[in-house]
Amino acid sequence: MQHFNNDDLTEMATRYRVQLINSLSGFKSANLIGTRDKQGNNNLAIFSSVFHLGSSPALVGFIMRPDSVSRHTLDNIQQTKQYTINQVSDDFWRKAHQSSARYLSEQSEFEHVGLTPEFVNNVTAPFVKESRLKYALTVKEITPIELNNTLLIIGEITDVICEETAIKDDGYIDIESLNTVAISGLDSYHTTQRLSRISYAKPDKSPMEIPLNGVNE
Amino acid sequence: MQHFNNDDLTEMATRYRVQLINSLSGFKSANLIGTRDKQGNNNLAIFSSVFHLGSSPALVGFIMRPDSVSRHTLDNIQQTKQYTINQVSDDFWRKAHQSSARYLSEQSEFEHVGLTPEFVNNVTAPFVKESRLKYALTVKEITPIELNNTLLIIGEITDVICEETAIKDDGYIDIESLNTVAISGLDSYHTTQRLSRISYAKPDKSPMEIPLNGVNE
Repeated sequence: MQHFNNDDLTEMATRYRVQLINSLSGFKSANLIGTRDKQGNNNLAIFSSVFHLGSSPALVGFIMRPDSVSRHTLDNIQQTKQYTINQVSDDFWRKAHQSSARYLSEQSEFEHVGLTPEFVNNVTAPFVKESRLKYALTVKEITPIELNNTLLIIGEITDVICEETAIKDDGYIDIESLNTVAISGLDSYHTTQRLSRISYAKPDKSPMEIPLNGVNE
Repeated sequence: MQHFNNDDLTEMATRYRVQLINSLSGFKSANLIGTRDKQGNNNLAIFSSVFHLGSSPALVGFIMRPDSVSRHTLDNIQQTKQYTINQVSDDFWRKAHQSSARYLSEQSEFEHVGLTPEFVNNVTAPFVKESRLKYALTVKEITPIELNNTLLIIGEITDVICEETAIKDDGYIDIESLNTVAISGLDSYHTTQRLSRISYAKPDKSPMEIPLNGVNE
């Protein structure tokens, strides 16, 4: 096994370190965040840091650098309070990745990368038509993380739009059947192969495989 | 497409809602967090909320509920300031899942689920011997998220231990070659299949596939 200690990490070349550290957290989610400014310009940016925060209320968080290429996403969320999160699937993952290029604020990433904005009642932010699972959020809290000058942005989910066949009897959404991709490191994209669903763990018994459709215990 | 609006989400049965909302963020990382209390009891718990926060300093975050089964993890981190994060691979994912059962604080999940604690210089928290990519952290910040009474725990990486062959020339770690698993929803585990690594996006050109080993631009 290779062991990097604190000195090794400190002395490491910057780009090598960025790649290495970005690989440590495991597989990351791949999501496009859609926003719209007050002038009606649509913005789209890929994020690998979207994570589940809680079901009740239904909260999702993501991390951003305020000085980065994705600053338009932040500006628009602050202006309009709304945004959409759109899962990336394997038929448009290259287009999704391309949205991270540094376009100007009046340039729509939708047009540049070849994805289609889609609008739904009461949500001003654009969805990605090509996405098979997507939802709208209202921003609830923007928390500065002073350790590295990033922001944690937390939103509450107001609308969920999903291909019906992927939604199982117990509410689980089979995102593998939607060909949702995962990211590793900064730039590697992956599809998945299910091992199994498995029952809630209890101290006195081994977990059981459960059918994809869920079970009534 | 199925559309759940705000009323639908509010009126949804609790367990259905938990499954549904947990599916929305996309694929999640699968990690075991190892801690040790002052009495020398080892604790191990699986988390699907570990995420990358930044490379310089090297920061990783995760979310926990202070009142949950994983409260021993929190207690131990507060006592000793140290913890380890260990990627879960497909040869011990069932054991990793079983660590979420509600064992007592003096019961070691290592013993109960059949994983092996491993100790490395200067790190008091136990690693998981079976894990092929793991790292030690010192806690830097515990931030309450008042919206849903959870905590964001942020640590700085002090040591990284990884199988050497998985580390590529540019610092990227091929976690797929380590059979690291991903989670969807609450209870589904997945292996992955790489689509490609892809070059940093620029406005004026299409992203290119890059070799697994990385490229010099």
